[in-house]
Parts: sequence; C-alpha cells; structure tokens
Amino acid sequence: MIEQSGMPSSKEIGHPQTRTVDSLVSSFKKMAFQARALAEATDILEEMVRDKECVRILSLAGALVPGGLRSLIAGTIRHRIFDIVVTTGANVTHDAIESLGYHHLVPKKLPSDAALFKSGRSRIYDVLIPRAAFMALEKQVGEVLDSLQKTTTASMFLTSLAKRLKDRYSILAAALESDVPIFCPTLVDSALGVMLSTQEEDKTIDSFKDRKMLIERLWESKTSGILILGGGAPKNFAFQSMEVTSKGFDYAVQVTTDRAEFGGLSGASLSEAISWGKVKKDAKTMEVFCDATIAFPLMIAALEERLSESFDIRGA
Amino acid sequence: MIEQSGMPSSKEIGHPQTRTVDSLVSSFKKMAFQARALAEATDILEEMVRDKECVRILSLAGALVPGGLRSLIAGTIRHRIFDIVVTTGANVTHDAIESLGYHHLVPKKLPSDAALFKSGRSRIYDVLIPRAAFMALEKQVGEVLDSLQKTTTASMFLTSLAKRLKDRYSILAAALESDVPIFCPTLVDSALGVMLSTQEEDKTIDSFKDRKMLIERLWESKTSGILILGGGAPKNFAFQSMEVTSKGFDYAVQVTTDRAEFGGLSGASLSEAISWGKVKKDAKTMEVFCDATIAFPLMIAALEERLSESFDIRGA
Amino acid sequence: MIEQSGMPSSKEIGHPQTRTVDSLVSSFKKMAFQARALAEATDILEEMVRDKECVRILSLAGALVPGGLRSLIAGTIRHRIFDIVVTTGANVTHDAIESLGYHHLVPKKLPSDAALFKSGRSRIYDVLIPRAAFMALEKQVGEVLDSLQKTTTASMFLTSLAKRLKDRYSILAAALESDVPIFCPTLVDSALGVMLSTQEEDKTIDSFKDRKMLIERLWESKTSGILILGGGAPKNFAFQSMEVTSKGFDYAVQVTTDRAEFGGLSGASLSEAISWGKVKKDAKTMEVFCDATIAFPLMIAALEERLSESFDIRGA
Amino acid sequence: MIEQSGMPSSKEIGHPQTRTVDSLVSSFKKMAFQARALAEATDILEEMVRDKECVRILSLAGALVPGGLRSLIAGTIRHRIFDIVVTTGANVTHDAIESLGYHHLVPKKLPSDAALFKSGRSRIYDVLIPRAAFMALEKQVGEVLDSLQKTTTASMFLTSLAKRLKDRYSILAAALESDVPIFCPTLVDSALGVMLSTQEEDKTIDSFKDRKMLIERLWESKTSGILILGGGAPKNFAFQSMEVTSKGFDYAVQVTTDRAEFGGLSGASLSEAISWGKVKKDAKTMEVFCDATIAFPLMIAALEERLSESFDIRGA
Repeated sequence: MIEQSGMPSSKEIGHPQTRTVDSLVSSFKKMAFQARALAEATDILEEMVRDKECVRILSLAGALVPGGLRSLIAGTIRHRIFDIVVTTGANVTHDAIESLGYHHLVPKKLPSDAALFKSGRSRIYDVLIPRAAFMALEKQVGEVLDSLQKTTTASMFLTSLAKRLKDRYSILAAALESDVPIFCPTLVDSALGVMLSTQEEDKTIDSFKDRKMLIERLWESKTSGILILGGGAPKNFAFQSMEVTSKGFDYAVQVTTDRAEFGGLSGASLSEAISWGKVKKDAKTMEVFCDATIAFPLMIAALEERLSESFDIRGA
Repeated sequence: MIEQSGMPSSKEIGHPQTRTVDSLVSSFKKMAFQARALAEATDILEEMVRDKECVRILSLAGALVPGGLRSLIAGTIRHRIFDIVVTTGANVTHDAIESLGYHHLVPKKLPSDAALFKSGRSRIYDVLIPRAAFMALEKQVGEVLDSLQKTTTASMFLTSLAKRLKDRYSILAAALESDVPIFCPTLVDSALGVMLSTQEEDKTIDSFKDRKMLIERLWESKTSGILILGGGAPKNFAFQSMEVTSKGFDYAVQVTTDRAEFGGLSGASLSEAISWGKVKKDAKTMEVFCDATIAFPLMIAALEERLSESFDIRGA
Repeated sequence: MIEQSGMPSSKEIGHPQTRTVDSLVSSFKKMAFQARALAEATDILEEMVRDKECVRILSLAGALVPGGLRSLIAGTIRHRIFDIVVTTGANVTHDAIESLGYHHLVPKKLPSDAALFKSGRSRIYDVLIPRAAFMALEKQVGEVLDSLQKTTTASMFLTSLAKRLKDRYSILAAALESDVPIFCPTLVDSALGVMLSTQEEDKTIDSFKDRKMLIERLWESKTSGILILGGGAPKNFAFQSMEVTSKGFDYAVQVTTDRAEFGGLSGASLSEAISWGKVKKDAKTMEVFCDATIAFPLMIAALEERLSESFDIRGA
Repeated sequence: MIEQSGMPSSKEIGHPQTRTVDSLVSSFKKMAFQARALAEATDILEEMVRDKECVRILSLAGALVPGGLRSLIAGTIRHRIFDIVVTTGANVTHDAIESLGYHHLVPKKLPSDAALFKSGRSRIYDVLIPRAAFMALEKQVGEVLDSLQKTTTASMFLTSLAKRLKDRYSILAAALESDVPIFCPTLVDSALGVMLSTQEEDKTIDSFKDRKMLIERLWESKTSGILILGGGAPKNFAFQSMEVTSKGFDYAVQVTTDRAEFGGLSGASLSEAISWGKVKKDAKTMEVFCDATIAFPLMIAALEERLSESFDIRGA
C-alpha cells in the first residue's frame, strides 16, 4: 500500500512570472497528465545525457523539418545530445532542400489545393514548399551519385550529400561535422528515393549494411537510450536492431499523438517493447502524448538550461 | 494567388539557450502545426486582454484542478485576465476540497483500482484524492445551505461557499475577491451536486437565473472573448448564451484534444460556431490541439511576460 | 503463466460472404484491437439484457441525434433494452425538433459558415439544421410550461413535452410510451434550457429531485448496467449516482473517441471508476474506441439478431 | 446557396432487424460523421472496382495481420479487388509466420510484459506471438536466399518466399497465385529485414527496381485508385510513385485514426495530396477515421454483397 508521507502533493504550478522554460517544465512535475509526463520525460533525457557511457539515439518521423524543428535538431546533434540519428527519408530530403535555399513558406491565407498545385507549390498541413526545390535537389543528387561507388549505403549517400551542404542549421551537415551517423531505413520511400530510382547510373543502395552497423554499435554500447519523435519506421528500425542484441534500451522516451488501442507501432507503449526485449524491464521510460513541435522544444530548452555549464557552447 | 514576398519563411526556432517562456512561444510563430497554433492563440489572447472594452470568459472543462492548474487559474482571475468563469462542477468541487486541506496526491507507484477503493483513495488518471475530502466538504456545504434562502442560484451558492475558504490559491476565493462571477451550469452533476441533492433542507437551485445573468452581461458588452479549455457543457453554455444576443464572440481560443470529425461539441471547430452566430464571422479564432496542462501554462506565462508592465502584481 | 491450450487463436475473420451483421460482429471476437473490443462489448450488452434483474442505463452525449441515431435509440427504448436514459440537453432538443418536422439536412456541398448563418441554417459537422426549428420548438415549450406547476423537474418537463409529440421515431415519445424516465442533468445547458431561461412565467426546474430519483432507482436494483455513448455530464451523473449507493455497476460499456491520458472524464477508463466505487471491482466492462455512429448500430443490430426470439417485435 | 429540395434528409437508420452488412452500411449514407464517411467510402470503392480500366492499389500499414485481417486481405487479392499491394514489412512477416503454423494468441488475462518476454511470447497490444515463430521463419529465409541471385528486389524475394507457403489464407500466397505484385519499400525495417541483414550470403536487395516497376505500372494505367489502411511508408510510396507520373489517383479512400493537425503523412488529408499532384483535383476521395479492424471488414463485406453476381467465387 502506498504511504502518504513521501508522496509529494500534486501542487499547482505557481503564479506565472517571467520565467525560464526549465522553471516551467520543472514545475510540471507537481502536476498531472501530460504536463507531468513531459516533465518526467525531460528528467529521463537529462539522466540519459549525463550517463557518459550511454549511446543515445534520436528517432525522427513525421514532418519535423517542415514543422520547423530543423535547426533545433541540428543543434542537439552538434551538442552531441544524440550520437545516432534514425530518420524517415522525408526529413533528410526537406533538410537538404532548405540548405539549397528553398524554404517552407507560411501563406497568409491558404489557397485551394488545386490552385496550389497549379502554382507550383505543395502543402504540408499549414506550410508550403515550392516544387522547384525538388528539381534543384535532383541536380545535387546526380553529382553525389557520380562520386559514389556502384553499391553504396543510405548513410554513405547521406554523408556525401552532406559534404555539399554549407549550412550550419542543417541536420545533415551537423551530423557530418559531429561524426554522428544518420540511418535512413526508408530512404527509398522519399523524394530522394524517387530521384535515386530514376537515375540512369544504375547505382544501388544496399539496405542491409546500415542495419548491421547499427546493431554493432548497440552491441558495443554499455548503456543506451532513445528519444522517439512520432514512431514509424525509424522507431521500428532502432527497436528491432536492439532486439537482435538481446540487451534492451536503458532509457526510452516517446513523443507521439498516436494511441495504443489501435495496435499500430507508432502508438505502441514502451511497456509492450519490454515483451520483445527491445526495452529493458527496469528501464526508465515515459510516453508524452503531445505534438512534437511543442514538446520537443520544451524538453530541449529545459535540458540545455540544466546542462549549460557542461555544454560545449562553441560546438553549436 | 499568394506572393512569396510578404510571406514569412517557416524558419526554425533558434538553438535553445536559457530563455524565457515567451521567447520560446513567440518563436513558435515561425513554425508549423500545433506549435504555431499555440503561438497564434497566445497572440489572440494578448489582443483580447489589451482590448479594454472586452468582456473575457474562461471556460473550464476536464480535470483541470486535479491536473494542477488551480492556482494558475486563480491567478488569471486575480489579474482580471478573465471577467467571467464558466466551469463544470468538478473543478469547483476539487478547488474547494483543496482549500479544506485535502490535496491531490502523486503515488510513486499506482496500486490497483480495487486496492485504491479499499484504501479510501480514488484516482483521476495519475493523481489520487482521499475520499475523506468529500465528507469534509459535505460539512461545509451544510453550513453554507443554512445561510441561504430557499431558492438560490449556482453562482450565489458558490459565492457563499467561497466566503468560507481562506486560501489565496483557490479559484472560488480569487473570484469572490475579484468580483468575477462563476457560472456552473452543471453544478448538479458533481460531488457538490450530489451533496445538494441529498440535503434535508429542501433548498432549491434555480438553474435559469444564472443563464439570464450571463446573457445580460454579454448583451451589454462592447466586445467579447473566450478561452475554452476542453469544451463540454461550459463551452456550450457560453456559446448558447452568446447566440441569444445575436452578437457573436470577437475573440475565441479553444484548447482541446477532441476532434471535429466525430460531430461532438468539444471537438467542434470555432468556424462551425459562426454558422450559429456564436462567433462573429470575422472574429479572431484559433484551436490548439494539445493537453491543457501543457498549453495553458505556456500561454499564460507568455502572456504575463508581455503584459508585465501593465499588470497589477499586487493583485496576485 | 498462460497456457497455449485453451487460448483461442487470433484467427482472421473468414472470407466475406453475404452475411448478417451479427455474423460479422461475432467473428470480431477472434480478431484484435477495437474489432475485438466491439465484439466483447456486444457480449456484455447481451449478458446485461438477458439478466432479468438488471436495471440498464443508456447514457447519451455527443451529437447523436443530429448524427442519425435517433430512431435507433428510440427503438432500444421501446424494446426495453434500456430502462433509464441519461442524456445531454442537445439530444432531447434535436429529438423534439425532428418531431416538429424539422430535419437535419445533408448538403451536396458545404457553404461557408458565414453563408450558412446568413441563410438561416446552422451546421453540426456535416449536417445542417434550419434555425426556424428552434422557433417552432419555443412555441411548444411555452405551451408545455402553461401546463406545469411553478416548480418542476427536468424529467417531468420532458414528459410533458413528449406528450405533445406524435412520432414513433422520437426518443422522448418512445420513453413516455415505455415508461422509461429520461434524466437530463444539463437541460439548462441546451437550446431548451435557453428557452426555459428566457420565459416570462418564472417557472423553476428543481435539478435535485431527478438526482434523488435516479439514486433511489439504483439503490433498489439487484444488478445494474450502463452503456455510455461519448461520456460527458450524463456519464458523470449516472456514475456519481451509483457512487452514492455504494454498490457499483455490474456491467459497463463505454464507446468513446476520447482517451485517458489527458485526465478528462469522457476518456477516463472504466477501471478508474472502480477506485471510486462507481463500478464493481469484478464487473464486466469494455471500452470501445470508435465513433458511436458506427459502433452503436453494429452492437444493437448484432444484439437484436441474438435476441430476436425473445423480442416483442410489436413494440417497435 | 444550397436548395432544400434535392438535399436528402439525414434520416435515421431504421430499427435494427436481422439484416445484412450492406443494408447497414448503405443506411449509414443517411447519417452523419464517420458512419456517413464509411458509407461514402464504400461507394467509392464500389465505383473503383466496377471501373474495368482502373489499376487498384491496397496500401497496408499498422498491425493488420496481427489484428486478424489476414485472410480477408488475402480474399480481396484473390478476387482481384486489388491489383497491387504496397505494405510494411511487418505485415508480410506476420503473414509468413502464420503460414508456418505460428498463430497470434489471445490470452485470457495479460501477464506483465516482463513475464511475457521471459516466457518467449511477445505482445502486440492484445495479442501474443511466440518468438519461436521468428526462428522458424529465419530457416525459411535462408532457403529462399539460396535460390536467389546476388542482387534481388523486395518483390522478387517475397515471391520466392510465397512459393514455399501452402496456405490459402496467406496474403503472400494469394498474391502469387493471383499475379498481384507486393511492394514492400520498408522490407529492411522488419523482422524479415533483420534476417536478411544478418545472413552470411551477402545477397543484396535493390530497393529501386521495385519503385521503377510501380511507376511504370501507374504510367500505363488508364485510371487508378487506392485504398489506404493506416498511412505510413506504403501510403507515401504509392503517392510519390504517382506524383512522378504527373497523373494523380482517380479514386482514393483512407482509413486512419491519425489526424491532420500534427502535420504527419498518415493523418494528412487526401486534399493535401492534390497540391502534390498525387491525387487528381476532381478525384473521388473519402477519409474514414476509424480503426481499420472495424472499418475494413465492414466495407469489404458490403462490397462483396454488391458485387456478388459479378464475383468469381471459385477464385476465393
């Protein structure tokens, strides 16, 4: 039975005052529901970052770059908050086209989708991207392919692409400079993948070598942690790689708006992952049910406040 | 057709640095999805608060007091960010029991619901409340009833209850001191309502007088705005009262996790309310799809930063 | 540890053939996720209906009548699948205006909400209702009030209104004919409530007598069950009435699209209700996460197939 | 302005009687919200199937095979309701292990996830799968690899695997017999992918050839349609392949529980796809927000009733 002594009261957050993000996030610990989930997730991230032996994965799905999280993600890579990135193809595609000078646009008023198509812009919920961006990217991809061997891997292809991007806010460039590998199991399923499929050079991407690299990296790790934004193939790829090692993650935080009751992976609980050996049975885990465009900046800004003395600020 | 010039780029939020909440919330304006929705909602709230002629309603549904928002809500009342509160019975019930010294508790580990029931504690998702609290409240209610006339209203009952609460973090007490009426159309549907139903004094609550008061208040208003947390009966009560006036709200912000596609009111869009005359056709409106325990503190903390010079800090 | 023998395989539903609804719903028992939840919920409803001593409540929230479930709900009342109805004010308001000849309309193409307002039609997601309907209803309400005493109850008011409706598809009329009380704790919070608030006769509704009636009914029941569509105040009203009796429901099925993680009542699990004594610890319970416009017809059609021999078909 | 004449009334569905699934689904057309969405989606599917020139894609994401839809999906392939399947790796993995005699199990009571792991069973929400199944599958995969050339494609690999499965309820076997290609852009991201990554034979899967095949197939199509269950990489793969052709789908139905407001692809509206040229601007489209384990069997059973005279029943 629980004891009341030692049980902290679910006190309200104080009256709002000009305050830092972390003072707000930390006050969430005395609340309930998703505010508390977010606070506890931030604590787990902090512990994971302070664990010097921990290999930390950032798993990215959803339109995070169009959503505006690009430079924040790049910053977490430069600070080595994360050691490995696993991502959908869309996020690296949109990262690269931003580096080529094509930005996601916010219209004052949304035209119809038929009008948008006609005008050469395409929509991602409430932002637009000019389709010319993809033609510019295709030119780059051609040059990258020329420099590559007949059979390559998704991570090697992305490294070569990154070398051509001079952009300190780019995820790809930050990863290259920080020696952080980017795994992209679904590269084929993205605009980059379409470009690679229709190239004439007949170069091939070996999808399996990257998998082996990730498994080896996890095998060698002493402890390991993961922050999952959105779920999808990157979550599955990281979790199944861990399953092979028979070790399980020590820390796992998932930010999702999906739910468990429909059985899909993106909403699957971190507890369920314990039954697969993907997460350790006594791991520190938390799920936060919130749009990542809100939750991720809050967690990272709070984290940076807590870690600022130990951060290599020059890195960012 | 839209023009690219004038269209702000969906820039990423900068690298995280020790920052205030408002600097984060304001940076969300250059993002997309619910981060931008939250930023735009905050702008509407700011404009609404700066509008000196505006009558502002706070509509409360969901377990906001158990969720930990009690003193924050009380603070917004003391600062007169809101002039009128419409709430479910549960939120005033739980506000009163906190004032009586019974707090919502956070267990280290959740016992089974059967074990909780046996031990005299009940659960609201991840917080507990001792059921003894309701007995203490019932005693208070008896005393309040003694002091009231045979027929009263929900708002008068709550005012009488508030007079007995000495607690600066109480919503009821803050409303009393700030002369902010609290309308509770579903008082009967709450623990307070159960207590009132089973009292022997045979006193009656006239549910309709409060409705008339709210309609009159809106009738006289020059402009009006509403912040809706969660939807439910309070949203409907405020909106239908406005419908009677044939005026429509000038500002409306809704924080909800429900969705429009299932047809219910809590998820109904603010645009739909235009078809009823509840919201003006050119009103400033925004929906934020996020747990209120996260979104409300963010919006209010940002708002306070922006308004700090004009705030009467002594009030809070 | 579980044993594989005795554990039914999660077999797939067979190849689709011209089949009855119940053959489909029953096949869902061998599936997973919400299909299985729906099948198990139907089994619980069947058991509850076959329990001759069981007092059965139907709890209605959400735009169920505009959604098209009106005559189906009326049918379940005529068949005495349910003995008591607890509902929001909106559902009885829209039930009554259908009886007055004003139907919910499906436009081929949705005009803007501003255009709708101007044309005298209002929108509920994808159906429209002419606002003239409410004026016709107001006339009826005036006549009902003339026939009532100074202080009445919501259920008595609805009974008087039902007497004026000659419509075999009406929920109110079906309840009157079948001697099924309709409790409406939020009558004040509906278009009917607005009409009652602005009447000149100064008649009052005692909100508490209905509560006492429901509590007494539950007190006397041998066993009891509830089907909750949508949650909201009706769920709370029925659950808190049961809490007073210290008995707890024996059967409970909830159809909702809300979720537990945000702490609100509509998404709260039926297990949580055990910690309050609202549901018995060994009760048969199931939550179905699905739009009620899909799940309710499926469950009721399957139920009718199973019960057809024992149904009094003339009643419907 | 809309005209009332010609506008069907949102009539209620009739009293439930022993009825076929299609009579229920067809009655949903007179309802609102997701019931109507499901009815309209079924009409679009019917039109798509009756269109003799239409190339029809079934896009599968989520735990549909563990969810119990396996034989139903296989049946739609045998009936050539669909000409092409695009799927996640998980669905073909779980299809194959069912063929090897390992079934998804439904425990009477769910043990803890730690206990499950220990006992060699893993959990997918509310079904279990023995992990021995994956070892049996690995043996099969080894044999398949022996028979393949050094560089193969995902679809060729799946065809070879299908040849070893003697199981009329298998998706893979049905596709092989019906000459329906199965594209699996995320094969690498599945248990099959793990097995392929860790094999010693050093065989490679060319991810791009399948993409080219799908694009060519769509290029040659006169009209085209897609039923999307769940979104994810398969939706993106099919949509981006269509984008390359500059044609756009003529029919598109999406069953999802995700939502548009968070910006991700699985919840992205079909209208948004028009802005990319993935869907024709005057295409027939419908989104159904419902668990696929409920919506898909309803739609297919209704469809079969409507098409029964023209169906080649021997095929199934």
